[in-house]
Amino acid sequence: MTTSKQQTTLPETDRTRHRRLREQGSLNRADLEAILDAGFICHLGVVVDGHPMVVPTVYGRDDTQLYLHGSVASRSLAADPEATICVTVTHVDGLILARSVFEHGVNYRSAMIYGVPRKVTDPDEKLTGLRLLTEHATPGQWDYARSPSRKELAATTVLALSLEEASVKTSVGPPDDGDGPDAELGIWAGNLPLTASWGTPVADPLLPPGIAVPPHIAERGGTRHG
Amino acid sequence: MTTSKQQTTLPETDRTRHRRLREQGSLNRADLEAILDAGFICHLGVVVDGHPMVVPTVYGRDDTQLYLHGSVASRSLAADPEATICVTVTHVDGLILARSVFEHGVNYRSAMIYGVPRKVTDPDEKLTGLRLLTEHATPGQWDYARSPSRKELAATTVLALSLEEASVKTSVGPPDDGDGPDAELGIWAGNLPLTASWGTPVADPLLPPGIAVPPHIAERGGTRHG
Repeated sequence: MTTSKQQTTLPETDRTRHRRLREQGSLNRADLEAILDAGFICHLGVVVDGHPMVVPTVYGRDDTQLYLHGSVASRSLAADPEATICVTVTHVDGLILARSVFEHGVNYRSAMIYGVPRKVTDPDEKLTGLRLLTEHATPGQWDYARSPSRKELAATTVLALSLEEASVKTSVGPPDDGDGPDAELGIWAGNLPLTASWGTPVADPLLPPGIAVPPHIAERGGTRHG
Repeated sequence: MTTSKQQTTLPETDRTRHRRLREQGSLNRADLEAILDAGFICHLGVVVDGHPMVVPTVYGRDDTQLYLHGSVASRSLAADPEATICVTVTHVDGLILARSVFEHGVNYRSAMIYGVPRKVTDPDEKLTGLRLLTEHATPGQWDYARSPSRKELAATTVLALSLEEASVKTSVGPPDDGDGPDAELGIWAGNLPLTASWGTPVADPLLPPGIAVPPHIAERGGTRHG
């Protein structure tokens, strides 16, 4: 989804500079987009009354912005319109099982985005944001389900967050202690993959008979997520 | 793991009081423990230089405390030993697909814990914390892998966080609009489950031949996680 106008490298800031060794940091915009597109739940961090609060919530995106459902973030925004938030998206890919406890770890892909969110007030942009949120979680659902009414739209808070200040960290593959002294211990080492999959759609018990699962949902059953 | 001395109900505070309707809040300690025991990755929220920072990290627990790997939280702790942190553990169980876009949502189980972490300095408690962390992610691994050396132990930061101030939120089942006017629209509605599973262990390419996968890891392959 990168346009030719987009920078392909994310700027490095004090908050997005990578500090650890084993983990691989990336400031590549394509890596950020791949992690965002592989999931639909983020962990949103806000400061409320001076303490951090971390809440899972859904998101969508376009080329330059993340859209968020706003009930939690809007509390922080109401207290301070200039307050920075942090959005983290994580995919856990498995466990790193090393020879030593010390070298154990987790294989993962994670993106962190920092910024001051903007409350979306224009009704057209609000609809766009909700479409991106809906389509991000369930492609095909925006045109299938009933669109928001004017009243529902008014009752929904949508926030936009620039993708400008972001960083990516990933960890992949076997443990690091295969060529050190611990390799002689005869201990099995490797990694244990963890994958997420969509199951079979479950109809609402109140659904009248004769309404088929639409293809965009039915086809997802059994496929891998993340 | 609840002992008879434990309170079975968590205290309600301004931070743990539930505000939303559809989602079910719980202050039941058994619900908190079930969510913590179903996962091994949390999202840790700290305030660094006045802004929130949300980082995925591993955890373990005993009856009264969460143990955390401390590299990120210790930066916040160093800046302010009295600073509150927030730890959130989330299991995403699927999508709620309603008749209207407005009623869409996510089925999930989530626990939030607030508190001022304590840096573990006693070597015995540090070992206990690391054992709980290791065993939480991979039961059986603490006795199988090489234990931390004195030097490794010194290089590891472990934090303890009381489980006293915590709250649980869950969302389960079909959408809410099955008995409203939208039920007449002929739109399919229900939920699409999402499940995580452990795969087949992958041996480190540097592993010499003849070292078998130990049963506590081999038996996990193909089982459900979460």
